[in-house]
Amino acid sequence: MGIILRGGTIVTGTDCYQADIRIEGELVAAVGSQLAQTGDTVLAAEGYYIFPGGIDAHTHFDLPVGRLSTADDFTSGTRAAVLGGTTTVIDYATQGKGETLQQGLANWQRRAGGNCYTDYGFHMAITDWNEQVSRELPWLSREAGVASVKLYMAYKHSLQVDDSVLFQVLEQSRDCGILTCVHCENGDIVDNLTRQLRRQGKTAPSFHPLSRPPRVEQEAVNRLMVLAEMADAPVYVVHLSCREALATVAEAKARGVRVFAETCPQYLVLDDSVYQDPTFACAKFVMSPPLRARENQAGLWNGLRTGILDTVATDHCSFNFRGQKDRGREDFSKIPNGIPGVEHRLGLLYTYGVKEGKLSLTQFVDKVATKPARLFGLYPHKGTIAPGSHADLVIWDEKRRLIIGAAAHAHNVDYSPYEGMVQQGQAIHVFLRGRQVVKDGVAAAKPEGRYLFRKRFVPGGL
Amino acid sequence: MGIILRGGTIVTGTDCYQADIRIEGELVAAVGSQLAQTGDTVLAAEGYYIFPGGIDAHTHFDLPVGRLSTADDFTSGTRAAVLGGTTTVIDYATQGKGETLQQGLANWQRRAGGNCYTDYGFHMAITDWNEQVSRELPWLSREAGVASVKLYMAYKHSLQVDDSVLFQVLEQSRDCGILTCVHCENGDIVDNLTRQLRRQGKTAPSFHPLSRPPRVEQEAVNRLMVLAEMADAPVYVVHLSCREALATVAEAKARGVRVFAETCPQYLVLDDSVYQDPTFACAKFVMSPPLRARENQAGLWNGLRTGILDTVATDHCSFNFRGQKDRGREDFSKIPNGIPGVEHRLGLLYTYGVKEGKLSLTQFVDKVATKPARLFGLYPHKGTIAPGSHADLVIWDEKRRLIIGAAAHAHNVDYSPYEGMVQQGQAIHVFLRGRQVVKDGVAAAKPEGRYLFRKRFVPGGL
Amino acid sequence: MGIILRGGTIVTGTDCYQADIRIEGELVAAVGSQLAQTGDTVLAAEGYYIFPGGIDAHTHFDLPVGRLSTADDFTSGTRAAVLGGTTTVIDYATQGKGETLQQGLANWQRRAGGNCYTDYGFHMAITDWNEQVSRELPWLSREAGVASVKLYMAYKHSLQVDDSVLFQVLEQSRDCGILTCVHCENGDIVDNLTRQLRRQGKTAPSFHPLSRPPRVEQEAVNRLMVLAEMADAPVYVVHLSCREALATVAEAKARGVRVFAETCPQYLVLDDSVYQDPTFACAKFVMSPPLRARENQAGLWNGLRTGILDTVATDHCSFNFRGQKDRGREDFSKIPNGIPGVEHRLGLLYTYGVKEGKLSLTQFVDKVATKPARLFGLYPHKGTIAPGSHADLVIWDEKRRLIIGAAAHAHNVDYSPYEGMVQQGQAIHVFLRGRQVVKDGVAAAKPEGRYLFRKRFVPGGL
Amino acid sequence: MGIILRGGTIVTGTDCYQADIRIEGELVAAVGSQLAQTGDTVLAAEGYYIFPGGIDAHTHFDLPVGRLSTADDFTSGTRAAVLGGTTTVIDYATQGKGETLQQGLANWQRRAGGNCYTDYGFHMAITDWNEQVSRELPWLSREAGVASVKLYMAYKHSLQVDDSVLFQVLEQSRDCGILTCVHCENGDIVDNLTRQLRRQGKTAPSFHPLSRPPRVEQEAVNRLMVLAEMADAPVYVVHLSCREALATVAEAKARGVRVFAETCPQYLVLDDSVYQDPTFACAKFVMSPPLRARENQAGLWNGLRTGILDTVATDHCSFNFRGQKDRGREDFSKIPNGIPGVEHRLGLLYTYGVKEGKLSLTQFVDKVATKPARLFGLYPHKGTIAPGSHADLVIWDEKRRLIIGAAAHAHNVDYSPYEGMVQQGQAIHVFLRGRQVVKDGVAAAKPEGRYLFRKRFVPGGL
Repeated sequence: MGIILRGGTIVTGTDCYQADIRIEGELVAAVGSQLAQTGDTVLAAEGYYIFPGGIDAHTHFDLPVGRLSTADDFTSGTRAAVLGGTTTVIDYATQGKGETLQQGLANWQRRAGGNCYTDYGFHMAITDWNEQVSRELPWLSREAGVASVKLYMAYKHSLQVDDSVLFQVLEQSRDCGILTCVHCENGDIVDNLTRQLRRQGKTAPSFHPLSRPPRVEQEAVNRLMVLAEMADAPVYVVHLSCREALATVAEAKARGVRVFAETCPQYLVLDDSVYQDPTFACAKFVMSPPLRARENQAGLWNGLRTGILDTVATDHCSFNFRGQKDRGREDFSKIPNGIPGVEHRLGLLYTYGVKEGKLSLTQFVDKVATKPARLFGLYPHKGTIAPGSHADLVIWDEKRRLIIGAAAHAHNVDYSPYEGMVQQGQAIHVFLRGRQVVKDGVAAAKPEGRYLFRKRFVPGGL
Repeated sequence: MGIILRGGTIVTGTDCYQADIRIEGELVAAVGSQLAQTGDTVLAAEGYYIFPGGIDAHTHFDLPVGRLSTADDFTSGTRAAVLGGTTTVIDYATQGKGETLQQGLANWQRRAGGNCYTDYGFHMAITDWNEQVSRELPWLSREAGVASVKLYMAYKHSLQVDDSVLFQVLEQSRDCGILTCVHCENGDIVDNLTRQLRRQGKTAPSFHPLSRPPRVEQEAVNRLMVLAEMADAPVYVVHLSCREALATVAEAKARGVRVFAETCPQYLVLDDSVYQDPTFACAKFVMSPPLRARENQAGLWNGLRTGILDTVATDHCSFNFRGQKDRGREDFSKIPNGIPGVEHRLGLLYTYGVKEGKLSLTQFVDKVATKPARLFGLYPHKGTIAPGSHADLVIWDEKRRLIIGAAAHAHNVDYSPYEGMVQQGQAIHVFLRGRQVVKDGVAAAKPEGRYLFRKRFVPGGL
Repeated sequence: MGIILRGGTIVTGTDCYQADIRIEGELVAAVGSQLAQTGDTVLAAEGYYIFPGGIDAHTHFDLPVGRLSTADDFTSGTRAAVLGGTTTVIDYATQGKGETLQQGLANWQRRAGGNCYTDYGFHMAITDWNEQVSRELPWLSREAGVASVKLYMAYKHSLQVDDSVLFQVLEQSRDCGILTCVHCENGDIVDNLTRQLRRQGKTAPSFHPLSRPPRVEQEAVNRLMVLAEMADAPVYVVHLSCREALATVAEAKARGVRVFAETCPQYLVLDDSVYQDPTFACAKFVMSPPLRARENQAGLWNGLRTGILDTVATDHCSFNFRGQKDRGREDFSKIPNGIPGVEHRLGLLYTYGVKEGKLSLTQFVDKVATKPARLFGLYPHKGTIAPGSHADLVIWDEKRRLIIGAAAHAHNVDYSPYEGMVQQGQAIHVFLRGRQVVKDGVAAAKPEGRYLFRKRFVPGGL
Repeated sequence: MGIILRGGTIVTGTDCYQADIRIEGELVAAVGSQLAQTGDTVLAAEGYYIFPGGIDAHTHFDLPVGRLSTADDFTSGTRAAVLGGTTTVIDYATQGKGETLQQGLANWQRRAGGNCYTDYGFHMAITDWNEQVSRELPWLSREAGVASVKLYMAYKHSLQVDDSVLFQVLEQSRDCGILTCVHCENGDIVDNLTRQLRRQGKTAPSFHPLSRPPRVEQEAVNRLMVLAEMADAPVYVVHLSCREALATVAEAKARGVRVFAETCPQYLVLDDSVYQDPTFACAKFVMSPPLRARENQAGLWNGLRTGILDTVATDHCSFNFRGQKDRGREDFSKIPNGIPGVEHRLGLLYTYGVKEGKLSLTQFVDKVATKPARLFGLYPHKGTIAPGSHADLVIWDEKRRLIIGAAAHAHNVDYSPYEGMVQQGQAIHVFLRGRQVVKDGVAAAKPEGRYLFRKRFVPGGL
């Protein structure tokens, strides 16, 4: 009555070996040879890799931005995710001004509930810190299962918090077993550079990167390292994009700051040459941080390989080029920021990392599944393939090859930043807690995802 | 006809879960539940950890130093190793002046052959580089199974090589799939500082650390990073001991140098306060690099935790205090360098790392077993617990507690640098390729270790 | 009808030679031999050094702090200054909340006018930045002779400005030939650490340094370097106190940031051991940044010697121990910050720098007179001894020796932080624009100082 | 009976003012107004700058290299120097293998004696260090007036010394008041890269820079910083050429290493684009270190401005393109290294530094005259304009403009690396110890230069 995945090459964050997997109910029961029992269903997996289900720890589905909402909601977003081999997403719930965290979280629970093809959890972005909110943190981690918050050092006048709030959140989160995620760009500088560009009539999207150069990111990372050190708190840098910031994280790790860092596929495989386009078309690539000069890519791959960077997430935040991105036709600073990507995370990393020898298979799995699971309180249920873990399994056919593009992708958005790029390898079957949710590349008819009550962050528990 | 280890907590470099292990012959056949078959032997492991057998990648057994030989030969050394949970050692075979590598290796094969309680391999220390030796490298890695060499930047006038030799060995090793291990101290400076101290009559062993301060190690590490970068070759720093060197390695990793680094238990749990003893007793702690100021310890633990440091090995190189160390009674520079430790590596790291929250269990296993296996061509046979891997297994009773000391240790040496220190947890049973070689803390009667033909170092294969 | 200073050893920022000086009116007419003309007054200076009059670029006289005012006003402050060999002070005028810069400056002009024994100028501290204030900057530098402004990165809720204001002031000051001076401590962190200490009942003055550790200063310096770089503006770091900040400035200078830095005698000759006093007495040393660990001193001296540090000023800001400092008896954060020192700047630097071989005589003059003159638009009138420069001259008797202390000092404050320290060498005669204002160690009866309309900061003009 | 230079603008390392200079005999007697006495000769200098005579601390005249000798000997070299405003050169005397320092110095004294249009001194390059040579150091500094030695970290198998020699020379030089100058490139790496290129058939001069990339220079500088620190000795880095090395020097200065550094005009105004020429013509630019990528120039100018770099010298070492450079037609490593430049040092630095706002006039004078005088024991006779100093004076007409080129230069070499470049400003009159040696741009008929017995290096004496 179990399921046997037979003869696949199982890859975890450490190991790579050929064996059978026996699934019982929602869990992996055993790995090895001669596991079949009477009544088991057998799926032949010879010639395929079997990865633990991917975990995308950075998505924005159904996110309201001004009068817009992202193109992807939880339905389309998680469906794209699972088709790409990602079985868990951690989305950023956001506290609105004047709201409690509880209210903010409830809004996101409502948006996601019943709509997810993947399992899902939430980080909680804090935008309005005060005494009362501070008293919600223990509830957040103990009763709501939200073991991470997020703060923004950028977006002056909207999301940005000052160093004092950062310090307080770091300290109190530490005491509650909450990991603090931070968007690192100096928003005060960005704000001034943006106004400078506007005064000079430089309003095309090609000027977007000039409003937030690498040094602006690096300064914020450096400041955060000091805040984390002074508050003796762990911290997680989201979407690190450049070598300068990488070097700062490396130096901080070496001196004992408990910092973890994430990068995204876009910073690994795209570069700022796209902004040479003087037309509005490059609005498709308006995101923050912006794409960087090509030489940063080698640094980021290397950061993943050496462990200075811990995870790869997408920061999926999709807006249609027509009807959404074009709100900023007269002023790049009005273009809603973000790109789609949740569907192609494993594919891009496999193609441009593993196949090109920049990452080993086990490193690949570590970055897309194991490390996110550990950092965000999902391990050992998620993030690995071992007796007792959730049977979230991706059967990966490395021989399949596809061309990424808006015509074919499952994202509900009218363009792809990766249009025309090759993806080598593809998830053909995906299991979520023992249930097959993708079969021969086709997603299940209805969403089966479940909310994940995440465990508190434990120092030294990684 | 297999063996079942029942209900232990299995720990690998990534995972930690409770399950049975089924051993068939020399290999692990499966992990999970309901694995027993008719005729299997069952060993109850409930309440114990099961680690992959430890790999000590830095030992010196039966090493001739001038007219002396180390106190431990392969028999006593590997017996101590296996009792401590280490099932594989990689010892440093050394080319003598005028010898070929083949001759050097043959000497060590002869010393080890038939005497080892653990499996064993060799690194090859090159001390006399020339055209002919350079032509032996392909043979070394392809036919002798020796996938690593070692060079010394210290020990002027004996082992030390210059930068030109370093560069050439790095380049040619790279092409042969050989990883170059390097002892990093600037021997020219050490030599001058030593003579300076001697001129000043400072010949007691307490002056030993003044002859090789941290900056001398850090300079050598920095130079090596440049050499590795210019030669585009991977490199492994042995026995890194101080924060300055750690920061240099971190910076090099961040900029893309393919560097790996090892530290040792002595640098993690002992410090230079021992040298305040003005008597000859502190000759027991004469090793190179010397013990460092206490504040370095936190840095090194942190280096392990963040992955800047890759492995923990012992640099076991034992000399009796009486009859050997005391050759340097009149001059610290004549004291044979080194300390014993192969028996206590896992115990010290478990006690002062895992129990004190500085390392997680999986990080512990990664540093003592998995990463050494990967770096030195022993993976996936060694270094993990997975279907198909060697059944090198350590059943670890975390409740046992012992006091380390010369009276009780298995090392064949008359003192212990860790005398009186507590070890929490102990290997009670050890399996080597499916055979039980330690039972209830007692080693098997005769050595069963086998020579390990190691695989070539593959870039990106980690 | 001129004055001849005969046979002194003239020291400038570059030169040191024995010669006569001929003064005509307010100016130096010539240096060399055989300069006397009929009718000249001759003052024998053989055996004495002659320095250009000192310039203290950082004083706070008659400064209102809450309901208090500093113990020294312009009368007592400048009289102490001139007795110590300082003939020019640049005081910090401060814009009150809601005031214009013009109003702020007028307040300080009124306080100083007619009361100064030295020549004097003002920096303008901006605490309430807005559109209107920004339009005053051209007036400030062109019509008011104020070529420098100051911003505070510390003192949350009172003086502190955010990065956006910093950026804007840097940019606009740059365009107006104004040098931006900055107090570098992260006030948000200081504020939180202070509240933390208060919650823990740690309210004695000995806890003051824990509220603002070196890392807090270094972070602010690093951030300022990035702001200066992004705004392409010159910047001047006031009262740099620690090695970490020094290294950050050095690195910034090396990469091209136009940064200048000042340190103070207190950081060079006192250290944080004074805070080991658990009684309220150490309130005498409550200043910001606080005194640092002793090992910072060598770094700062070295910074002066190598030119990484540009100037030495006092940050003279005196409060009586009785009646003022003791307002913070229950809470160190209520102790008015600051110490006296304007009288002893040259003496301390000469005694503990020049006499101990840490600075040469020319470096000493450069730091206390020449470089401040250049940076703050007073050169070539002030800061050197050359034909055409103001005859601000200090005749220094290196054989005099005094013990610094409240009983003897000219400061109008009831204690000295340097109580009991030896000063070797003393100003015996001082000339201000050709007029002798100190004679045999006695100050002139009435103040003769004049307001200095300073020249705009010129990039590359140093 | 003196000479009056009337009304020029006098520039020293600190000051810039209009005044008369009165010369009596070899010395400056006074500066100021109304200095003329009966019988004085008056030279009108209104509208001109008057600089102290330039000091070029790095020349190689009449240097034997294999079977060649440099194109310029002391006659042509110093004549070119004085025409360019340089009145003192410090040439590198070199100990031959097997020679004593005394013999080496005697060879150079003989070559220079009676032939110099400038005053001259020697550094002593040590290439064969041994016990006996070490005993010559006190003689060198006390009796021979040679207060500096030089060591090479490059040129394996010929000039290169190892770290042990470096350490010993640093220590012993320190005790003798000798400043150790060092050529910083890792010769072992250079040697290997060169052989690699040769094996690949890359023998054209365009490959020269690939044999010695910036990292090779930076490594050597870093190592030297450690050696200087461990030996507690001052050190002078010659011809620093790249940003990486600059940053290393800055960091060392900040942590207290007593390091001084020199750069050269070629690294400030030329760049490595010249090596894109695939023909042999770029042999004209074969020097070591090679020219660097253009972005290094801003770093070096900035290094001069901030004082991280102390001096500008030429490393003048000229070889004819025809008959000398072309010895390496088949192999760039056989091309004699070096370029001419002694004539144009002031002109290039004035044109591309002062006129372009990268250096102030006083900084210019500091780098070309004052700082070299101080570092190399010539101050206060040389390097400044002050009563008592040598009347080495350059009357500089900033309105003159010339095009640099082989047709017009005074160098005895058949090409100029600066061919076609504009020089703005020119020395029209030059005085050497009160004697006019250049008049209206024409050099005196015969050499009047004198050997300079230099003073010992005094720590803290700068």
